[in-house]
Amino acid sequence: MTQKSFQDYYPESLSYCYGCGPNNAHGLHISSFWEGDAAIATFHPQEFHLAFPGYVYGGLIASLIDCHCVGTAAAAAYKEDGRELGTLPQFRYVTGSLHVDYLKPTPLGPPIIIRAVVEEIKGKKTVVLATVSVDNIVTAKGRVIAVRMP
Amino acid sequence: MTQKSFQDYYPESLSYCYGCGPNNAHGLHISSFWEGDAAIATFHPQEFHLAFPGYVYGGLIASLIDCHCVGTAAAAAYKEDGRELGTLPQFRYVTGSLHVDYLKPTPLGPPIIIRAVVEEIKGKKTVVLATVSVDNIVTAKGRVIAVRMP
Repeated sequence: MTQKSFQDYYPESLSYCYGCGPNNAHGLHISSFWEGDAAIATFHPQEFHLAFPGYVYGGLIASLIDCHCVGTAAAAAYKEDGRELGTLPQFRYVTGSLHVDYLKPTPLGPPIIIRAVVEEIKGKKTVVLATVSVDNIVTAKGRVIAVRMP
Repeated sequence: MTQKSFQDYYPESLSYCYGCGPNNAHGLHISSFWEGDAAIATFHPQEFHLAFPGYVYGGLIASLIDCHCVGTAAAAAYKEDGRELGTLPQFRYVTGSLHVDYLKPTPLGPPIIIRAVVEEIKGKKTVVLATVSVDNIVTAKGRVIAVRMP
């Protein structure tokens, strides 16, 4: 039995997202799960996802932070509402802003771990902080403002 | 005769970048050109580059801003140095930080225009501002701090 990710509960309209939609055949299939109060995604990059030989492309890192944090914002909304993921009415979030600080080059090869925590929920906006790490070394930090859609 | 892009002059080590490397067979091939003091890139998204049906994936927009602005920083360094692109010693920039404000959904279909201007060059750091537009409507704004590598 495999645990379902946040994205497996997304409404149909979001299930084709290139970054995290389970139904996008060409996409990255970013998948996020709770581990306590943090949300974790593990991504296995392809060898062509490079910035320069041996290191991960920064745009991919931005994409991982984006989808994982927006997914975390949605999952946190269910948690705050005391409801299970996927129950009705469904929450739907989009990215209002994305900030990434690249601290050092990210080695290309091992799994990339994205860890997110909710900093603040204020009305329709949720602020999510993320770290990106490989082999337990944090190589990038992110901050996403996710916005709940009607 | 086709005009060469900023990226066509990149050193070998950067020519495999997933976002903009001419030698990455799987990559996005973002290509940047001067138009006066601004740098312009035109990107033709694939139909699978969606966030939700009809709209462009935000991580792609972040990637376009990232590579285009870093390329613009490098090209501006040559300009400031009074040298032609690709002359020696070659300048090599990486992304220090990336910020994107998503102003509205970006329609998926028409070419995406990324326009960048250099805000400031201070030592090794160059700040580049970008707008992303489709059909002359700006849908996202970006700010990149590009860092010159030794």
